[in-house]
Parts: sequence; structure tokens; C-alpha cells
Amino acid sequence: MPAYRDLSKEELLEEKASLEAKFQEVKEKGMKLDMTRGKPSAAQLDLAMGMMDVLNSTSDLKCIEGVDCRNYGVLDGIREAKQLLADMTEVAPDNIIIYGNSSLNVMFDTVSRSMTHGVMGSTPWCKLDKVKFLCPVPGYDRHFKITEYFGIEMVNIPMTADGPDMDMVEKYVNEDPTVKGIWCVPKYSNPQGLTYSDETVRRFARLNPAAEDFRIYWDNAYGIHHLYDDKQDHLIEILMECKKEGHPDMVYKFCSTSKVSFPGSGVAAIAASEANLKYIRKHMTIQTIGHDKLNQLRHVRFFKDIHGMVEHMRKHADIIRPKFEAVLSSMEKNLEGLEIGSWIQPRGGYFISFDALPGCAKAIVAKAKEAGLVMTEAGATFPYGKDPEDSNIRIAPTFPTLDEVKTAMEIFILSVKLVSIDKILMEK
Amino acid sequence: MPAYRDLSKEELLEEKASLEAKFQEVKEKGMKLDMTRGKPSAAQLDLAMGMMDVLNSTSDLKCIEGVDCRNYGVLDGIREAKQLLADMTEVAPDNIIIYGNSSLNVMFDTVSRSMTHGVMGSTPWCKLDKVKFLCPVPGYDRHFKITEYFGIEMVNIPMTADGPDMDMVEKYVNEDPTVKGIWCVPKYSNPQGLTYSDETVRRFARLNPAAEDFRIYWDNAYGIHHLYDDKQDHLIEILMECKKEGHPDMVYKFCSTSKVSFPGSGVAAIAASEANLKYIRKHMTIQTIGHDKLNQLRHVRFFKDIHGMVEHMRKHADIIRPKFEAVLSSMEKNLEGLEIGSWIQPRGGYFISFDALPGCAKAIVAKAKEAGLVMTEAGATFPYGKDPEDSNIRIAPTFPTLDEVKTAMEIFILSVKLVSIDKILMEK
Repeated sequence: MPAYRDLSKEELLEEKASLEAKFQEVKEKGMKLDMTRGKPSAAQLDLAMGMMDVLNSTSDLKCIEGVDCRNYGVLDGIREAKQLLADMTEVAPDNIIIYGNSSLNVMFDTVSRSMTHGVMGSTPWCKLDKVKFLCPVPGYDRHFKITEYFGIEMVNIPMTADGPDMDMVEKYVNEDPTVKGIWCVPKYSNPQGLTYSDETVRRFARLNPAAEDFRIYWDNAYGIHHLYDDKQDHLIEILMECKKEGHPDMVYKFCSTSKVSFPGSGVAAIAASEANLKYIRKHMTIQTIGHDKLNQLRHVRFFKDIHGMVEHMRKHADIIRPKFEAVLSSMEKNLEGLEIGSWIQPRGGYFISFDALPGCAKAIVAKAKEAGLVMTEAGATFPYGKDPEDSNIRIAPTFPTLDEVKTAMEIFILSVKLVSIDKILMEK
Repeated sequence: MPAYRDLSKEELLEEKASLEAKFQEVKEKGMKLDMTRGKPSAAQLDLAMGMMDVLNSTSDLKCIEGVDCRNYGVLDGIREAKQLLADMTEVAPDNIIIYGNSSLNVMFDTVSRSMTHGVMGSTPWCKLDKVKFLCPVPGYDRHFKITEYFGIEMVNIPMTADGPDMDMVEKYVNEDPTVKGIWCVPKYSNPQGLTYSDETVRRFARLNPAAEDFRIYWDNAYGIHHLYDDKQDHLIEILMECKKEGHPDMVYKFCSTSKVSFPGSGVAAIAASEANLKYIRKHMTIQTIGHDKLNQLRHVRFFKDIHGMVEHMRKHADIIRPKFEAVLSSMEKNLEGLEIGSWIQPRGGYFISFDALPGCAKAIVAKAKEAGLVMTEAGATFPYGKDPEDSNIRIAPTFPTLDEVKTAMEIFILSVKLVSIDKILMEK
């Protein structure tokens, strides 16, 4: 079939009637499909069930330093957990602080601390008239919610195939002292699955911020979340790159095992320069006596080391790869040539990003919901929930079963086609 | 022996020489004793080792609501954990939010949120010129560190046998709109082991704060931490009492299982009115996807219910009671009548509070350290670490073994006597 917009009005109406009939059929099945969030499936969680057995009532619960992990103490993580998460995020163990169960919480904390106590001695942001964050779009909704909650003004930065538009980033960061941060998911980005190019990372490291308290918020959530063994993206390690360029303190790097072991029961960490970590530890000393060391121990004893973790991620990939491929092949088969949407084929991460015709995203998501498929709210991938083009839709294929993904894609494709035809008809 | 101050200079010098000799003897043993913090001993931690086995790789990890506890979701705690901690802190499950591993962190968060976002719609404290907290003294050092860290001015409120001096509390709270909170450890208080009387709790509930965003920070850390079966303090439940008096929103209550299961790997909670919790949940929605549900499940499956927890606390009491009694009997035997110090016999909690002659606390702690006994820093029980009388010393007898406690008390008694003699000699 040729591009929809090249069809005559009559041809479009005919196509619409045929699609409507199919949509009614699917709708009548009364499906309940959830593709809202980047959640692992039960089969993926089963992979880590061995973690439930590694500690038992006869285990030695001392960590390498000899500390009893059942008691108070060890503010910033047991040594072996630091090693594991340092390897996971490609930094030295001395550049790591282990937190609780959620990297989102670490990021929230980081912004909250900057609001009340500034950054390494700078003026607390709550004392400033204006604070801005750059937000590569489309991006991760929960990042944007944090900055919105703290009244931080968000500036959209378009994503390119190489990462954020670095000309814009450089202009803002180097010239505007109210710009204090930029949210990045640099590898297998949320939602596009893009990885920042070498040149992009180097340009990040060479920024000369107008604000001394500017930091890159580098959320490396999908650092080891490859889909393939033979096709993997590589991301330059940002801490070292910033250090090389004479800006060792310019970046906070976040990671967690949420999508490695168990979401909500994993281990999170921040990686940064020693000067940054020193300032953060001062805050932590007041905030807590320490995070859950038994869970840190559980993780280390289960994965053993980074090789164990990498092997474990291969098993995740085996489960989710067919789901990604089902989504992509469905789009290729059913949408290619119609010119009513575009998508990116990711090599890792948790999402596939779909760009519909402008003004169609909300309507497509609403249409899909009619037939029982709940997707991430359209607009969620932009600050304030406002996609200026109303075009981007995030597809999260990991949680449903493969069969459910296939059914979900039928609904999705029908929804895209029907909404697009309406849009084109209106313009004819 | 009569009171030291009734001895002649010669008698004092003679006593001093004899004590110095004993001190040298103990010192030469090169002991290393730690009585700094309220930490459970290894034997206490062993009591909960069964918790390591209640979840294993074949367990059903769904909670009552049917949610897979291994995955994301359930912002404010699984239902059965709410029930357990609600029973523990004597409120309804609807008045509970379950947090992560540390009630200290919940308190920190609560103050931090008030700084950046106010209290149920009030002006954020960071926008105010002055914010004050009342601090019953002696009290818990980590409370004071939180308010100090946020630049909140602290006002000392003397403790009486019935709790804080309520005349002062009423005057400050009802008249000064900059007073936004009061730190309370109402049962088996830290460090005195005192429990607020019924009248004190009622007067708390009847406060008419000048500030709408005033809250009582009710850290019920030792609610079920009795030392005896037959001698137990009773504390009136403050949420209900405030509700009865028409001030349902005036209190935040904090608790955790840190000294019930494992410190650092327990479960913490806040209890408050529905209006307060609604405001807190808005914050949490941004801050986290949820806390560690597997650990919540682990706790519920191990303790089963509040009765199981109470039985468990009896076992703790059996281990720590002899240590408390060793401290108290040593003080009675060696110090009674000398009029160089006073102490309170607690019925629960983790501490014994000792008041030395004014100006002697720092010197006593330093002296004890010479012989290898590390105690909580003198002054720590007061805001800014400043005990105006330099008199209060917190004794934490739970962590060392019973034998170590006995040796520690030898050192402590000698230190108290030697420093007191010097003080009295100077005044002669």
C-alpha cells in the first residue's frame, strides 16, 4: 500500500471501514493489556530467585571489612557492593556511594539537597530566583516530575541520533548561569533507546558551565541492559572523560540493580568525584545511619562479580529480545511505507519510541485504551507532560508476555492507522 | 563513705591516690570497650536469624493484595506490613505509611520536605527568616543534628520526671509562630529512659499552636522495648489524643523495627492523620516508585503479627536486662551517698542517663577513654553538642557483652570519682 496521504478520500474511507471492523473485533475480546511502564516480567524476576537463598540463618553475615551487616554502621556501602556497582558503572570503587533501593530516590535526594544546601558550597537553590534544567526530549517522565516538583524551570532540548542537540546544550550551559543541570539517560535512552555518540560525550565533558553548581545528571539506568550479544552500543565513561577535560566535579552518575535483580528491592548508587562524594557524605551523615547492608550482601553473594551480572543480563535479554522484535516486526510489516509514523530500533534498554503524525499521539493512546491496551500517557515523555507536537508514544514491551505483546501490537497498529486516517481526511 | 564534698582535703587526696592506682591497673589491661551508641548486641541479632529463612526461592512472593513484591509498585507499603507496624505503634493501618530501612531517614525527609514544600500547603520553611524547634534535653543527638543541618534554631526545654517542662512548651508553641516543631522520644526516652506522663501527653494534645505548620515529632523509637514483664511504662497514644482534642493533624509519629529485627535492614514507618499522609504521599510519588516490599514481606512472615513481635521483644529483654542491672547496681554500690552524680533507673529503651557534678561530664568521658572505654561524647545529648552544665553522660549498655559492661563500669566509676575529686579539690 502507498503512503496514506497519497490515497484518495474514497480509498481512505474504504481503508478506514475495514480497519474499524477489525478494531471492533479486537475490542470485543475485552483484553486487558498493560504497556505503561518499564517493568520486568515475572519470567525475568524468576531469574533472580536464587537471591532468596544466598543468605540463610546459618550464613556468615560479615562483609569483607569484618562488619556485622545485621547491625548499624557503614554509611556509604560495604566494600564488595561498591566494587560490584563500580564495575557495573565503570568507575573506581572510591567514586561510589551505595544508597538504598532506588536510583530515582537518589536523584530526588540530589536535587532536594541542592535546593536546601547548594552544591559543594554554592548558594542553596531555594534562595535563587530562578533555576533551570535542560531536558533532552523525549525523555524520562520521572526525571521531569522531580524538577517540576521543586519548581525548576525545564527547557526542552531535542534529541538527535547522536544524543541531545549539543549546540543548544553548549549555548545554554556555557552562557546561562541559571542552568544548573541536565537530565540524561545516555545509553539505550528512555524512551528512544539511543546511545550518546563519542563526540556527544566529549562535548559534554568539554562544557564550560556559567554556573559553578551545574552538574550533568547522568542516569545510566541501562548501562548493561543489552538486547544482543553481537550488536551492542558503547558509551564513553563520563566521569573519566570529565576528569580528563579538567572538570572532574561536573557530573553525577546514577545506577541501580532495579532491572537487574528486583525493582524496589535492588541496590542503587551514585558515582561522582571525590569532592562531590565528600559533600554528599556530609549530608548522608545527618540523613541516615546507613542503608540496607544485608541486601547489599545478598546482591554480591548472588552475582559474585560483574561477570556474573553480565551473564545474568544475557538471560534477561533472551526473555525480552523476542518482545522487542515482535513490536518492531509488527511496525515494519504494518506501517512501513504508509508514512504515518517512525520508530527507532534499539539495541538495549526497555523501550521503543514511536513518533506518530503530529497531533495524533494522545488520540492513538486513547484509541488503544478503548480496546483494552493501556500505554504510557502521551506527552509523558516531555516536561510538564506537554509534547509540543503531540507525536511521541513510548512502547514498553517487557512486562506483558510475548503473546500479549503481539495482541497489543495489533491494537496499537489499528489505533495508529485509524487516528492517522482521520487526521489525513481532515486535512484533505 | 560520706559525701565527697564532706571529706577533708587530705582525705580526698588519699582517696584519689588509691583510685589512681586502681585506674592505672585497669588502664594497663588495654581494654577496648565501646558504649557509644544504642546498638543491639550480636546475641540480640541472632534472635532474628530466622528471618533469613522465611523467604526462599520457592516462596510465594505475592502480598495480600496479590501484588508481586519483587516488582515495582505499592508506594506506601503492603497491607500486611501496614497492619503490623500500625499495631506496633497503636494506630489504624490507614494512618500508616511504610518507608525504607530507617526512621531517622523518615524524620530527615519530613524536615527536608517542610523546608522545600511546607506543611500541608504552608509557606516552605526555606522562605522564612526564622524557624525554631523545641528540644527537650537531654535528648537524642541525631534529632538535633537534623534541625541544626537545616539551620533551624533549637530551644532547650528541660526534661522533668513527667516529660518536657510543659509550661515552657505551651508558652513557646502557643505564642511563637516561628516554633514549627518539637522533638520527642516519649517512651523510654533517649537518654533518660523516662516516659511522658498521661498529663504531659494530654497537654501536648491540647496545644494551640501559633503556627499552623507546627507539628509534634513523636519518635516512638522504644514503644515495645520493655526491660521487664511486670514493670512496664504506659504511654497514651498521641494520634488519637490529638484527634479527640480537635487537632488531628498536629502530630507525626515515627517508628521502625531497627531494634526489633536488624538495624539498617528493618522497616520504618510514619503514622499521622489522613490529611498529613495525603500531603506526604504527593511528595513520595515524586521521590520513589516504592520501598523494599520483599523486606516488608520478610518481616511480616517472620513476626506473623504483633503478638509475635511482643514475644520477640521479650527475648531481647532477657538479653539486655542483666546489662542494665549491672550498670545500675554498679552505680548504686559505688556511687550512692557520694553525691557526685545521679541517675535514673529505666524500665525500657536503650540507655541509662547519668548526671555528673556540673563541669565534669567531658572530663569523665575523656578519662574513661584513657582506659579504653569509649562513651557517647559528652554534650551530644544537647543541641549543638553543648550541655550548658557539662553534666550529662549517656550510657549505652546493650552492645558489649555482660562481662564487658561490668569492666566498663569499673572504668566509668573510677573516672567519675577521680574527676569529681579534682573538681571538689579545686573548689576547696
